Amino acid sequence: MNVVLLSGGGGGARFARGLAGILGPGELTVVGNVGDDLEILGLHVSPDLDSLLYTLAGLVDDARGWGRREESWHALEAVGEWGGEDWFRLGDRDLGLHLVRSQALDEGVPLSEVTARLVRQAGVDATILPATDDRVRTHVVTPAGTFPFQEWYVARGHRDEADAVRYHGAETAEPAPGALEALAGATAIVIAPSNPFLSIAPILAVGRIRGALERRAVRCVAVSPLIGGKAVTGPLDRMLSRILGGTTPDFVAKSYKDLIDALVVDEADHPAEAAVPLVATSTLMRDRDAERRLAETALEAACA
Amino acid sequence: MNVVLLSGGGGGARFARGLAGILGPGELTVVGNVGDDLEILGLHVSPDLDSLLYTLAGLVDDARGWGRREESWHALEAVGEWGGEDWFRLGDRDLGLHLVRSQALDEGVPLSEVTARLVRQAGVDATILPATDDRVRTHVVTPAGTFPFQEWYVARGHRDEADAVRYHGAETAEPAPGALEALAGATAIVIAPSNPFLSIAPILAVGRIRGALERRAVRCVAVSPLIGGKAVTGPLDRMLSRILGGTTPDFVAKSYKDLIDALVVDEADHPAEAAVPLVATSTLMRDRDAERRLAETALEAACA
Repeated sequence: MNVVLLSGGGGGARFARGLAGILGPGELTVVGNVGDDLEILGLHVSPDLDSLLYTLAGLVDDARGWGRREESWHALEAVGEWGGEDWFRLGDRDLGLHLVRSQALDEGVPLSEVTARLVRQAGVDATILPATDDRVRTHVVTPAGTFPFQEWYVARGHRDEADAVRYHGAETAEPAPGALEALAGATAIVIAPSNPFLSIAPILAVGRIRGALERRAVRCVAVSPLIGGKAVTGPLDRMLSRILGGTTPDFVAKSYKDLIDALVVDEADHPAEAAVPLVATSTLMRDRDAERRLAETALEAACA
Repeated sequence: MNVVLLSGGGGGARFARGLAGILGPGELTVVGNVGDDLEILGLHVSPDLDSLLYTLAGLVDDARGWGRREESWHALEAVGEWGGEDWFRLGDRDLGLHLVRSQALDEGVPLSEVTARLVRQAGVDATILPATDDRVRTHVVTPAGTFPFQEWYVARGHRDEADAVRYHGAETAEPAPGALEALAGATAIVIAPSNPFLSIAPILAVGRIRGALERRAVRCVAVSPLIGGKAVTGPLDRMLSRILGGTTPDFVAKSYKDLIDALVVDEADHPAEAAVPLVATSTLMRDRDAERRLAETALEAACA
């Protein structure tokens, strides 16, 4: 089995953990979103890659949904005391990772290689690849102006309605080494229950990744992140309504037009009509068993 | 009163606190050593300036003698877990300062301006100036090779005997803005009980600072860091013996040849012969009162 998962952080990372639990060592390759990466306090932060790493390594704070367990916040408190930028939540243990990665990047090591080192160091037996080693940055177009992703999401609390999303740098970005090979050698391709606009589209904005998906020789199945037309967390329901016109499975499927062969949706959204076959199941990942069951359902649909 | 103090960290910082306690707001300018600054984990760290800042701001961990009170070490633990450089002890709260300063330096703000901002932010009413905004780095020549200061001191535990000390970059370094003006306008100049080779010489290695001291119009008094010929902490006694030939007050005075008008020494080192007049007192700064009394004695000698 060689499964390639396209994923953001958060729910995508939990889904990746579900998949990792049912696949053998080395059978899972996760291609992670880097569109919400940011430079803050002189550090390079890759929130989605970190969520994937922390979740697969058993380090994540499951209650919070991001960052590390047993975290403290003393460095950021001091940053604030000294008048520095403290709006982006960086915990002390988390900072250790950002320091090590930023130093390696400054020395010219590509993000994919840094990520591979961290994955090895954590003893994770899946592969985590950034979509690209190039700089791709998600910007959100709103009535109040266009904002870099984290400024819109964190600093402004995603209160401004999104009219469109742009992926700066994607037009010239190349897939990270290994990404096209993983897609070409995949037994199945799965798109995690992540935000299509904010987590998956920045991956697909890398032209050769999108092209590989369009020309896939195996099935690709996406998992809808909506339950009853509502986002479990985040602004996806508002975005889908405003940008595509609705939140039923058909609108989720439309955001992956030509790229998927089936869509896994929650029972609360079924029955429904969509351009691709729907597979209904319980999609709320309330615990590790639920993550695993959802991953099994998606994998079965992808191998059908 | 305008008092200029040349100082390293640790004991020098405690002496600065003693001086600050007897001077009025704005009457103290500390010119701090930057020869033991280092770049670690992509951060610029200025250990002596930090000791001065933390001590004058009431933030220092007095028991440890450096760094911040109520410190935690989670970030550095994580750095180690991820395979990064964790030999230089950086606490979480301390990291907050390094992040803010490093970011400002990366943006092109000179070290002196960053330091002034931090001093203001901390509400310290003394001036702290780096000796220079240029890059000066202390290297220690030993039988085992020549090492950058922190590698010799921290990573190798200063076990290698020092044959000489070099101040890379000092030959072209200019005094930080305000340093020459402070010396020219000083009522008295004091050299803190810091290590002459490792803390004070890197300041004096900046040619125009040394020149200003040589041509001083006011008295300059140094405080010996030795008690009974022994260093309170660190390797100074071994260095003085090996490099100059002894640890009596005369050898301390020799390390400040042409620069001082008197030397304050501990009663345990007195009576003694030296090229400058000696002032004997109790120099062990066991508490805040002792810091203050030592500062008073030195200031009286400098204003005599």
